Amino acid sequence: MKVLVLDIGGSNVKMWMSGQEERTKFPSGPKFSPDDLRAGLEKHTTGWDFEAVTVGFPAPVVAGRLPNEPTNLGTGWVDFDFEKEFGKPVKLINDAAMQAVGCYEGGRMLFLSLGTGLGSALIVDHHVIGLELCDLRWSKNSSLESKLAKTERKRVGDDRWEKRFHSVVDLLRNALLPDSIVVGGGEAKYLQQLPEGVRRVDNRMALEGGERLWLDPGFRL
Amino acid sequence: MKVLVLDIGGSNVKMWMSGQEERTKFPSGPKFSPDDLRAGLEKHTTGWDFEAVTVGFPAPVVAGRLPNEPTNLGTGWVDFDFEKEFGKPVKLINDAAMQAVGCYEGGRMLFLSLGTGLGSALIVDHHVIGLELCDLRWSKNSSLESKLAKTERKRVGDDRWEKRFHSVVDLLRNALLPDSIVVGGGEAKYLQQLPEGVRRVDNRMALEGGERLWLDPGFRL
Repeated sequence: MKVLVLDIGGSNVKMWMSGQEERTKFPSGPKFSPDDLRAGLEKHTTGWDFEAVTVGFPAPVVAGRLPNEPTNLGTGWVDFDFEKEFGKPVKLINDAAMQAVGCYEGGRMLFLSLGTGLGSALIVDHHVIGLELCDLRWSKNSSLESKLAKTERKRVGDDRWEKRFHSVVDLLRNALLPDSIVVGGGEAKYLQQLPEGVRRVDNRMALEGGERLWLDPGFRL
Repeated sequence: MKVLVLDIGGSNVKMWMSGQEERTKFPSGPKFSPDDLRAGLEKHTTGWDFEAVTVGFPAPVVAGRLPNEPTNLGTGWVDFDFEKEFGKPVKLINDAAMQAVGCYEGGRMLFLSLGTGLGSALIVDHHVIGLELCDLRWSKNSSLESKLAKTERKRVGDDRWEKRFHSVVDLLRNALLPDSIVVGGGEAKYLQQLPEGVRRVDNRMALEGGERLWLDPGFRL
């Protein structure tokens, strides 16, 4: 089965199809709308031949739907019918959850994505559970995301930011009881040392995750 | 199928078997050991006829096993072989998770138990995921549990404690994206007003949950 995978992010849309060597991308941004997506797809994927689609989306996805408009893109997404657009079956999934699927190796895995913000997902025995752990509290006036965001790394420096990451990992390990923890996202490369038992993965795992959701019937969304 | 359900708590062990009208209990406590359990069972359940057992235990249970000794009971539990003891198949589950199963109605449900401490579980499409959300942060120096514990209700008064509960519910709703939230535990009765969309359940749900785990093959631990 040939799967088209889209990873819609706040800065770019990355695209890849089963069997391709390279991924393709085009810019998104804070006003990025379904019309912009349509235009980008027409420009870049015309002639691509696929049977199914996975869309990783930077917002909570509940029961395959978007309950709210994304905070980092434009509007119109809640009512956008991806299946109608593609004319193929579509799995819509949170972007961090899609990347988590790409690097899942069994058991209870916590996935954290360090990017502009903090993405998260838990996979328990192949059951993919999108979470918004970013909203948990770090202190009375700050969230986990506000302490680990890209802007904070730049503000407080890599060392302090890394210490915070280690503390957040400890916190979430105790609360969510994972067997393994994986960190990804564009900012993960700034970690000098990883907490014990944490592994780091490449962002390309997101595209593999999108394909894997169709090829491996063991996964449950 | 007749199921024996044990709900081992920090103060009591509650027991019940399918078909019984009333539950039976005997005291536990901070030194309660497997030998004490054995003695209690001999005294109270001799002659009870059951085919399977569910044990709700006040500690994290990972993959059907106890990774650590409980904090509110005595020791010897990690190596205790429940199946050998009963001579019947046993499902071992965190106590809050067992109660969550008893009141599950579908979708993604967050269960919070207000007792001596704060118990929690998430059930997603009948998949039961024990959590220790008690350890999450409320502030730099306090956990969710430390702000909602029984001793805190007594210290700050019911009104302030109830406000905190509402804030914690908001926090966890945003982070874990449940469709429904249920609160149980011995302290839940002190809540005058429940947050929107939260329902309260009786502690007996724990025993029903233990039975349901065997009777309803849809549940996954």
